[in-house]
Amino acid sequence: MDVKLINPFIDATLNVLETMAYTKAEAGKPYLKNDRMARGDLTGVIGLIGEMSGTISVSFTEKSILAVVSNMFGEEMKEMNDDIKDAVGEIANMISGQARQKLEELGRSMKAAIPTVIVGKNHTISHMTRHPVVAIPFGTDNGDFTIEVCLEE
Amino acid sequence: MDVKLINPFIDATLNVLETMAYTKAEAGKPYLKNDRMARGDLTGVIGLIGEMSGTISVSFTEKSILAVVSNMFGEEMKEMNDDIKDAVGEIANMISGQARQKLEELGRSMKAAIPTVIVGKNHTISHMTRHPVVAIPFGTDNGDFTIEVCLEE
Repeated sequence: MDVKLINPFIDATLNVLETMAYTKAEAGKPYLKNDRMARGDLTGVIGLIGEMSGTISVSFTEKSILAVVSNMFGEEMKEMNDDIKDAVGEIANMISGQARQKLEELGRSMKAAIPTVIVGKNHTISHMTRHPVVAIPFGTDNGDFTIEVCLEE
Repeated sequence: MDVKLINPFIDATLNVLETMAYTKAEAGKPYLKNDRMARGDLTGVIGLIGEMSGTISVSFTEKSILAVVSNMFGEEMKEMNDDIKDAVGEIANMISGQARQKLEELGRSMKAAIPTVIVGKNHTISHMTRHPVVAIPFGTDNGDFTIEVCLEE
């Protein structure tokens, strides 16, 4: 997969976390997801269709999303609730939106399906494609999260 | 949501289970998903985009998918492995494909994004839409599963 197509998702993630949740995240080295499996406690998934077909997911640990949403609301969140689930959907939606805008400038216009949020301790995510799946780990002061991007050109 | 748009998913589910896995499933009464939350141990999610935007998910208990895949392979499956995960993706894919074919005949053409499979004991699934989400419970001799359909017209 062309790295030019991955950067918009990294930039969008950093920007969404910073502007929406005053959270500075740092992107780690992207890797091809073979048997390394992303795990998380909350995941937002969005299907993309247009010039290419794809799917992105954003997986948080409970610790990291509690910190992100605490920043977002300016109030300490200590346990899971519907607001936190909604925030994961909204973060996934905004990452998808900003990344798609940049991809459109690169001539790769895509639309997004309805986001789905999965909640469950330590679940795994697999994308059913023979194309490469790129995972990007992110670190914050309060825990890690991972985004995964697969695009079928 | 027009019930005419839901029936293709029910018919496709019954047909896919029967032809692919020699499993007779029975559809329960569809319900609007408000606070009743679908849970499962394995879920396949597929985004749909075209005349409408949507997402479907199929959630199995571990018991029900082990029975389905045992039928499919003609060999008793006793524990989770990659083949079972792949089967969930393939079942979701085939349900989406057959349902989309019928929806196209109704003038509602849609394409499918890359399927995602989530594995994790007793996770919950939420679709981030203000439109109705319709859940359809299915029963088999060896446990239950649920499909969820949301379509934004």
